[in-house]
Amino acid sequence: MQGFDTTYGIDTIAAVSTPRGKGGVAVIRISGPDALRIGGEIFRPKSSAGLGDRPRYAVFGDLIMPVDTETFRRGDVIDDVLATFFKGPASFTGEDTVEICCHGGVLVTRTVLEAALAAGARQAQRGEFTRRAFAAGKMGLAEAESLGMLLEAGTGEQLKLSRSGMSGTLSAACGELRQTLTTLITDIYARVDFPEEDLGSIPEDEVKKRVSDASRRTAELMKTYRTGRAVAEGISTVICGRTNAGKSTLFNRLVGSEEAIVTDIEGTTRDILTSTVSFGGATLKLFDTAGIREDVSDAVEAIGVKRAKEKISSAELVFFLIDGTREPDPDDVKVAEELHGHQGHVIALLTKADQRETNSDAVKLWENFPERERISARDGEGIDRLAERVGQLFIDGELDIGHDPVISSARQYEALRRTAASLDEALASMEDGFPPDVAGVCLEMAADHLSELDGRGHGAVSADVIDGIFSKFCVGK
Amino acid sequence: MQGFDTTYGIDTIAAVSTPRGKGGVAVIRISGPDALRIGGEIFRPKSSAGLGDRPRYAVFGDLIMPVDTETFRRGDVIDDVLATFFKGPASFTGEDTVEICCHGGVLVTRTVLEAALAAGARQAQRGEFTRRAFAAGKMGLAEAESLGMLLEAGTGEQLKLSRSGMSGTLSAACGELRQTLTTLITDIYARVDFPEEDLGSIPEDEVKKRVSDASRRTAELMKTYRTGRAVAEGISTVICGRTNAGKSTLFNRLVGSEEAIVTDIEGTTRDILTSTVSFGGATLKLFDTAGIREDVSDAVEAIGVKRAKEKISSAELVFFLIDGTREPDPDDVKVAEELHGHQGHVIALLTKADQRETNSDAVKLWENFPERERISARDGEGIDRLAERVGQLFIDGELDIGHDPVISSARQYEALRRTAASLDEALASMEDGFPPDVAGVCLEMAADHLSELDGRGHGAVSADVIDGIFSKFCVGK
Repeated sequence: MQGFDTTYGIDTIAAVSTPRGKGGVAVIRISGPDALRIGGEIFRPKSSAGLGDRPRYAVFGDLIMPVDTETFRRGDVIDDVLATFFKGPASFTGEDTVEICCHGGVLVTRTVLEAALAAGARQAQRGEFTRRAFAAGKMGLAEAESLGMLLEAGTGEQLKLSRSGMSGTLSAACGELRQTLTTLITDIYARVDFPEEDLGSIPEDEVKKRVSDASRRTAELMKTYRTGRAVAEGISTVICGRTNAGKSTLFNRLVGSEEAIVTDIEGTTRDILTSTVSFGGATLKLFDTAGIREDVSDAVEAIGVKRAKEKISSAELVFFLIDGTREPDPDDVKVAEELHGHQGHVIALLTKADQRETNSDAVKLWENFPERERISARDGEGIDRLAERVGQLFIDGELDIGHDPVISSARQYEALRRTAASLDEALASMEDGFPPDVAGVCLEMAADHLSELDGRGHGAVSADVIDGIFSKFCVGK
Repeated sequence: MQGFDTTYGIDTIAAVSTPRGKGGVAVIRISGPDALRIGGEIFRPKSSAGLGDRPRYAVFGDLIMPVDTETFRRGDVIDDVLATFFKGPASFTGEDTVEICCHGGVLVTRTVLEAALAAGARQAQRGEFTRRAFAAGKMGLAEAESLGMLLEAGTGEQLKLSRSGMSGTLSAACGELRQTLTTLITDIYARVDFPEEDLGSIPEDEVKKRVSDASRRTAELMKTYRTGRAVAEGISTVICGRTNAGKSTLFNRLVGSEEAIVTDIEGTTRDILTSTVSFGGATLKLFDTAGIREDVSDAVEAIGVKRAKEKISSAELVFFLIDGTREPDPDDVKVAEELHGHQGHVIALLTKADQRETNSDAVKLWENFPERERISARDGEGIDRLAERVGQLFIDGELDIGHDPVISSARQYEALRRTAASLDEALASMEDGFPPDVAGVCLEMAADHLSELDGRGHGAVSADVIDGIFSKFCVGK
């Protein structure tokens, strides 16, 4: 297959696949042509059946050191383990694989790996098992990216999004689109190559219509990236406002824990606290900032204010808190002015909605913002409405995350953007009266770009791109 | 069976058995009478065969959420996993067990566990899987202790020692001894109960000889604790001496890394550095101390000196470094005097053996110690001899660790000590002319104490002792 790295899969790799540290059990994975031989050298079953006799069957036995080492003699038992042989291609990597499940001590796990290396395996690199799975055609690049997202997922929405990507929802949608293009290309070239034969040739209007349809479908998929990005990468969100306006209380309510210190002393939150939370369906990368006061005597707090200002100007979403019980101070007014020119979304929040007294000037300041909510972070009033509003800003409510195809990486989006551009060129060439083979070339390019999305099909993906994806994985994956 | 906690095994427990953190894969273990039902609710195989159809067979399929949650709908796929069913008693716990191997993201792993809990499993407590294995008679207490040691093992010797314990070497030795006692008891009571019948009754001298043999064998086993303790628990070892005598250089050489900062500035090592290393076959819990100077102006260094003195007086082994190239200062002399009254082992080390010039007073100071070596930590001279000497002090060289039975915990030693005491009482009662049933009672007590060692047989082990052993395990083991 084109685009697959053929240097992979010629040797046998091994790694600890479970997280580092002490646990009940650990898994050591060995994959490659010599997996069964290496497994046979380091594993002695307690039953009569050998490891290779029954694929996928968990065999109990002794893990033995195959060579003399400083500590062990050849043949010494390191641990009693379960070993399972997966005959390729029915394995994660598509290669012969032996999985060893040993007791989860740090040293014993490392020693089991050392035994595998001593028997001829090579220490796996980051993501090398998954890369082999890709090379063997077990998964596309989009699925690999989704698997990467699954491993990193910090919110339920991210988990759902990565799941749908892994289950091939997106790949299936792209596959359909690619099929449409392939049929179209065949039809066009049939007309070009054999113009004398009437190969049921399709009228130009029909071709245009089908290209337009493909273009529209591509645009639909591209549109999902707004939501996919909001879930997968997250929205940089800053909570700002004068000191003691309730920023930390809101931060804590969104985070759901006591991560920020909430007190009544002005200027308490000196450093920027961050947290990633799911809110209104979007993933918010939340920054709680120091209160913004122009006149700060404390040097440390001054640094906090400066950082807060930088964070605000680069944020995609700003929660601007206005204390509803106090007369706005000059800082409030100044920050409000600056926020009216902000590039991202600003939601003004009139805080302390649970208090009876409301300051009318504070309300006026607040009403100047088109996006606004009245909240009480303390008792949760207005928080649901705020979540809904955030969802409306960043999430396509029609989209069923976890079931619909969703674009979730800039790389995937870029592949679609190029596909769309080539489709547009195809349409333009026809509008301009160029012969059909020009449109054919454009459509071929469109199909190639589409193939970049999951690395399958006839489009090659550069080794750099592949490296970039798999190097984010841990060793052992 | 007596001594086994019957409250265990009536419900089904689940836990993440792999270490916390992000990895390639994670294992969630479900054990108990409902394991298969719960597995069936949260796992949907991709093949036609169900989870329970083929025990020990790794089945590929979808892990699904069995209920509606905040994030997932009932039936939503959380991950694609391998699930393996182990039919009790052929499982680690002896109960029906389902092992789920999912992708190793933190959230996905937790969500898989949540699915198992939602389907009716209870979150397992620390060491509960192993405790169930013990309750089911799959392992004795001595094996469980060895497993605990395996999980914590930091040196190859510890790993070997724990392996031999887990493989039942010690249990077998105790089993033999118990068998000897049981036969003896039967013989004695046969004489007591049916004195008129000549049940091939054994002469008293023969009884005495067999009790003596058992007593000698018990003493032999007890003797192995010196080595077992030195390997399993380790020897608290302090490196001391005046500043700049080469303490940190020795520490680093033993540790084999650059953990301690080694410089030429007097008083560099202010805090006590610790490390656990294997040296001469023993495990040294190594403390590198601040240089000892009576006259320290720096308050921080003064604290370091005070701590060093405390460490020295409680240490089992002291490496006292004397700078071979410099005239001993009053501090050296004072420390040397104090060390001559030390309760543990003191090895005087004349350092910088690689330098040409040697100070004769330093040599004299050094020669006053019966245990001494000349070393150069920098180029490694004398380190092998030092290792050998340490081995002679703490390790029984005749003992083949990893193959011979070795006592490795104070609890095991205490069980043997009581066994020996009861055997002695049996002998004494016979010497004093008491009737044979008195010896019989003593021998029964001896057998009971012996049973405490591995918790098997007819001796009950208190729930507190069992709790103490299993509470040291992690959740998921």
